[in-house]
Amino acid sequence: VKVCELGEKGLIDLFRNALEEGDDAIVGDDCGVIDEGDEYLVITTDMLHRKTDFPASMSSYQIGWMTVAVNLSDIVSMGARPLFFVVAIGLPPDTDVSFVNGLSLGMKACASKYGVQIIGGDTDGHEELTLVGTAVGRVKKGSLVMRRGARVGDLLCVTGSLGSASAGLELISGEENILTKALLEPEPRVKEGISLSKYATSMTDMSDSLALSLHDLSLASRVGFIVYADEIPIDDEMRRFSREKIMDHSLYGGGDFELLFTIDPKDLDAASDEIEMKAIGEVVPSGITLSSDGRTEEIEPRGYLHL
Amino acid sequence: VKVCELGEKGLIDLFRNALEEGDDAIVGDDCGVIDEGDEYLVITTDMLHRKTDFPASMSSYQIGWMTVAVNLSDIVSMGARPLFFVVAIGLPPDTDVSFVNGLSLGMKACASKYGVQIIGGDTDGHEELTLVGTAVGRVKKGSLVMRRGARVGDLLCVTGSLGSASAGLELISGEENILTKALLEPEPRVKEGISLSKYATSMTDMSDSLALSLHDLSLASRVGFIVYADEIPIDDEMRRFSREKIMDHSLYGGGDFELLFTIDPKDLDAASDEIEMKAIGEVVPSGITLSSDGRTEEIEPRGYLHL
Repeated sequence: VKVCELGEKGLIDLFRNALEEGDDAIVGDDCGVIDEGDEYLVITTDMLHRKTDFPASMSSYQIGWMTVAVNLSDIVSMGARPLFFVVAIGLPPDTDVSFVNGLSLGMKACASKYGVQIIGGDTDGHEELTLVGTAVGRVKKGSLVMRRGARVGDLLCVTGSLGSASAGLELISGEENILTKALLEPEPRVKEGISLSKYATSMTDMSDSLALSLHDLSLASRVGFIVYADEIPIDDEMRRFSREKIMDHSLYGGGDFELLFTIDPKDLDAASDEIEMKAIGEVVPSGITLSSDGRTEEIEPRGYLHL
Repeated sequence: VKVCELGEKGLIDLFRNALEEGDDAIVGDDCGVIDEGDEYLVITTDMLHRKTDFPASMSSYQIGWMTVAVNLSDIVSMGARPLFFVVAIGLPPDTDVSFVNGLSLGMKACASKYGVQIIGGDTDGHEELTLVGTAVGRVKKGSLVMRRGARVGDLLCVTGSLGSASAGLELISGEENILTKALLEPEPRVKEGISLSKYATSMTDMSDSLALSLHDLSLASRVGFIVYADEIPIDDEMRRFSREKIMDHSLYGGGDFELLFTIDPKDLDAASDEIEMKAIGEVVPSGITLSSDGRTEEIEPRGYLHL
């Protein structure tokens, strides 16, 4: 059996045997979690490479930015504050030095913007440009938000707007707008994630798609969700697309770094006062469905940004 | 200018601009160092891939083992205790599932042996097998050992024996002995590194060669070294090689995971009681030389295990 026949979930299950949940660590969420007494340390790692993760028009600065952003997004999706970052960089030998400078500046810009220090790294020759970032964050013990805390009756909410990165990929051809910016220079929701550590009962980010993240939360929390199509927030630029396309990008498009989370209805006002967010549905006992014009349909577990 | 014209040191300098040494972090040693009050947290990342890091005869179990071992070696070379590990794995789509199982078992075996928990990871499709491990360790504040503490008059010492991995690569052809084991299943010097945190004034590991590590310590500590050729410890199996070859493997061969460190002569006996180690030279004001049969010659800054 070849790994390509397994799919990513099957592959991850193979490695799960190597993971070890002990007295002082939790595994299997967006990050590994280390018990530090009053606090948890959270750590995440993410591999990106030229062919599958970086649109051809992406600049080296944007590639550097993205390498940091994807990892910060995982840290904040647990309600933690990202603090430190290390990176392993595999570069084709004929890479131009100016490209490396752009990469370095982009990483630094994203890290600085979110108060993160880059404290180490490794470089290596590699046939394909490959970037593996690892981020470390910290969170007070009571504030850690996992995928597994959603309860029936909670509201399902998101930060920002959905489908922009995926729509941006469809547009991309020199055009620059809010959609291509979402694709090429995504902003991890650091402030939002930290605020939500007080309110969210479960949380994850949506880098592979709303649909896949719903399935992740569902699996971890053993609940279902109803999403109301009309409540899904989209950027104005999205209105140039057909309604069908909009729904497809919003539900199944990857590349957005928005947070998907659940909160107790009584906390909706307080959380909304602190951050830009929107309730898009509810937690129900089972099923993951979209409600649109009075009809409901199943939301399939698919997504990912296909370049 | 292409990166292949810069060399690894030049390349690292390019990225150094992105690194940020703040009040609560130290950069530029074997690991990034994070201030945690009474303790330091140390973190390191290392990229390995099929063509340049894994001899063809290496099994998937050994590749997994190696991926953990290289990172633990960096952690212990600062006197810290390795605790946690995350890994990003890029797999060619036609990789067999049995290979993945071997990889997973090898990682787990090395981690378990040294008391390290694997707490997370990422998998990705990749043309070339690529493994990036990140390890986190902890050390009491007074016990952190950096590259920069060597003082003139200190003794220069090593753990274990040198040149074995590099000699093992020359032998490799089905033969199994202590040399090929050093190459294929290196043992990071965890116990030794932790013991040495009480004694060593400077330390690093020697995965790229004794020569390169001497130059690293020299640069960081602003001192020189004399190495006495006759004092360099080698495995018995090495005696099958010519004297010239032995010196070449010991000085310039990569792949050994031994520690190179300096200690005050008064601590030699105490340290030697705790671990297997050997003084091979002295710290001097400047120059990096080999003394052999009454002659001295310069030790060049070269090394690395070329497959």
